[in-house]
Amino acid sequence: MALINENYQKLKAGYLFPEIGKRVREYSAKKSSRNIIRLGIGDVTLPLSPSIVKAIQDAALEMGTMEGFKGYGPEQGYPFLIEGIIKNEYNTRNISLDSDEVFVSDGSKCDTGNIQEIFDANCKVATTDPVYPVYVDTNVMAGRTEEAFDDGRYAGIIYMPCLEENDFLPEFPGNKPDIIYLCYPNNPTGTTMTKETLKGWVDYAKKNKAVILFDAAYEAFITEPNIPHSIYEIEGAKEVAIEFRSFSKTAGFTGTRCAFTIVPKEVVGYTRDGETVPLNPLWNRRQTTKFNGVSYVIQKAAAACYSEQGKKEIQKNINYYMENAKIIKESLSKLGYKVYGAINAPYIWLKTTDNLSSWEFFDKVLHTVQVVGTPGSGFGASGEGYFRLSAFGSKENVLEAMDRFKSL
Amino acid sequence: MALINENYQKLKAGYLFPEIGKRVREYSAKKSSRNIIRLGIGDVTLPLSPSIVKAIQDAALEMGTMEGFKGYGPEQGYPFLIEGIIKNEYNTRNISLDSDEVFVSDGSKCDTGNIQEIFDANCKVATTDPVYPVYVDTNVMAGRTEEAFDDGRYAGIIYMPCLEENDFLPEFPGNKPDIIYLCYPNNPTGTTMTKETLKGWVDYAKKNKAVILFDAAYEAFITEPNIPHSIYEIEGAKEVAIEFRSFSKTAGFTGTRCAFTIVPKEVVGYTRDGETVPLNPLWNRRQTTKFNGVSYVIQKAAAACYSEQGKKEIQKNINYYMENAKIIKESLSKLGYKVYGAINAPYIWLKTTDNLSSWEFFDKVLHTVQVVGTPGSGFGASGEGYFRLSAFGSKENVLEAMDRFKSL
Repeated sequence: MALINENYQKLKAGYLFPEIGKRVREYSAKKSSRNIIRLGIGDVTLPLSPSIVKAIQDAALEMGTMEGFKGYGPEQGYPFLIEGIIKNEYNTRNISLDSDEVFVSDGSKCDTGNIQEIFDANCKVATTDPVYPVYVDTNVMAGRTEEAFDDGRYAGIIYMPCLEENDFLPEFPGNKPDIIYLCYPNNPTGTTMTKETLKGWVDYAKKNKAVILFDAAYEAFITEPNIPHSIYEIEGAKEVAIEFRSFSKTAGFTGTRCAFTIVPKEVVGYTRDGETVPLNPLWNRRQTTKFNGVSYVIQKAAAACYSEQGKKEIQKNINYYMENAKIIKESLSKLGYKVYGAINAPYIWLKTTDNLSSWEFFDKVLHTVQVVGTPGSGFGASGEGYFRLSAFGSKENVLEAMDRFKSL
Repeated sequence: MALINENYQKLKAGYLFPEIGKRVREYSAKKSSRNIIRLGIGDVTLPLSPSIVKAIQDAALEMGTMEGFKGYGPEQGYPFLIEGIIKNEYNTRNISLDSDEVFVSDGSKCDTGNIQEIFDANCKVATTDPVYPVYVDTNVMAGRTEEAFDDGRYAGIIYMPCLEENDFLPEFPGNKPDIIYLCYPNNPTGTTMTKETLKGWVDYAKKNKAVILFDAAYEAFITEPNIPHSIYEIEGAKEVAIEFRSFSKTAGFTGTRCAFTIVPKEVVGYTRDGETVPLNPLWNRRQTTKFNGVSYVIQKAAAACYSEQGKKEIQKNINYYMENAKIIKESLSKLGYKVYGAINAPYIWLKTTDNLSSWEFFDKVLHTVQVVGTPGSGFGASGEGYFRLSAFGSKENVLEAMDRFKSL
């Protein structure tokens, strides 16, 4: 009898963005209002820049010739892209990496979702709260939790609340975790960790023989100094951290799909007998067995992000989004809202007014000013009472939305 | 302490194709011979056809405009591709499917590797032997086996030998499996199942409440009637089977990456309490949680395979490969080899001569006629004494290789 993985049945049915979509559809159907401005989902809106378009077109042409055709490529990615990543993302920050420490993939969602497979089913997982739901859900599916409580938290996960009171920075949990998910610049709060704070986490992981899964998908949006772009800027991090990076937000690849994961040769896990095991070969085995590499044309597109022209084009788009973030932050601050993030991340995290719950505030904003944001509680129990706006819209829409907020 | 998934340590270190590469490199380094002809790995060699190249180029242009840009798409694939798949692959064979029964992905390796996640960790798995290693290895990683025996088989897997004696068709195992992997047309033997035989498996699965994971990656190479292209040509199969299909071999997408998986709404698994659970929502949840969809430009490329012109171009390439298969089969038969497959599949499976082991024969062929094939034992214990040649080379190389075989 084909038994199912019953861990799936622990997953809470309603997912955040479908519920948002449903409420927006219901509202639109009932009310014929002015246009609805969507600052909810964290999806980019600017087109692929010309260097990237050209790279895809050239690669397609190449694939149409006998000499240029590429069949199966290395599962880990082509050397031309891996070299571009090491040179531009790491060497520029005095981090050296070997080419077999870089694993190109089709998305950080996949990588942050799949990475838990190389760890024992009984590993204790710690995540910040609020958090990107994928970290938690994939561990639920893998059986590392019990059922969910009423507030949406799962028994068995160590939640580290990130609130106004602690500057949205997690505290070291008393109950020692084996695997620690950290995402900085943070989704959804838009807040960051300084090098000193992150150093504390690296030391904590070392002391407890834990592994940090560091999601740096938003590092390109950092504007201030002393904010680490990579966890490997911290001394000793290579021994305890795996890092996830993506072209999605950086270069507008949410619909084009390319990302990469760094598994240094130094980072280790342990057998039940206490033996030390490097994680790099485990991830390599996982990827070579279950993945067949990213499309050649897409890897060429990603590599174009590192050409001189490509870098300029991409930075222009990032600046555009960060200008939006600034507009939102300043406008809402002026209106008296408590606003966080937006300086080193494309997300604005604001406290709801009048003690409204996240969903109450969502409905109020939708019904009153026809702007869609994301309820903070959708990212976890500690997100309750907060609301996320994304800076990925057009400047016109952002200005219009801010104007509308005046009448809220 | 971050414990690793110790199931990974059960995996046998040497993987087939790296070992082949090593032997070829060592031989080339020692001997300066004429060129080596590679008929080993199952990778295509003809370039992407013009319709596909154009589709990629057009999609890239579109992605470079404000109006045409696409961010996150549906994880399950764009409707334009799903409709093309249903219409061209299924409706033409009198199979109806709903659009939410089709899941577009970046490869059948991923899908056949990931599908086991939705089943219980204690499910009993049956596979043919020889077999595509991914089916077995992913179940080893998931903890469904014990250690490997000396012959490479893992305790806990039900192996179904496919040999000359049984026309390379598995027999129903006495020890009842919960999950049954079948790949027809078969990799590596190139043999097929008739509709009647496959009907027997559907009935067997029904009787035992098992699920068939049917890999039909090579269906486009079928030339004879009465060979099912899809398992859903068999009555009742929707209740017990998940089907995997790919553009890799069909349209030369091994380096372009697009595939799809069919999970009918009728196919079910069971809870420990004996409750029936449809598998479609489980796979949907798996994909939406751990996957972010295939690149828009690649989905456009795949959809181009269903244009009138695209179909013609693709069929031309398939015919080219099957002409190669025919040449190999006829040439080797004439030389007295026992040759299987090659009629409905791009693989030729031949029995080694003089009772040589697969690797001995591999070395003999490499050293004597400088042709690279794949040792049958690399696909499982029952592949010992067999050798696989692939029809994906150029016709010139195939003719030259067959000429060389005369002196073996």
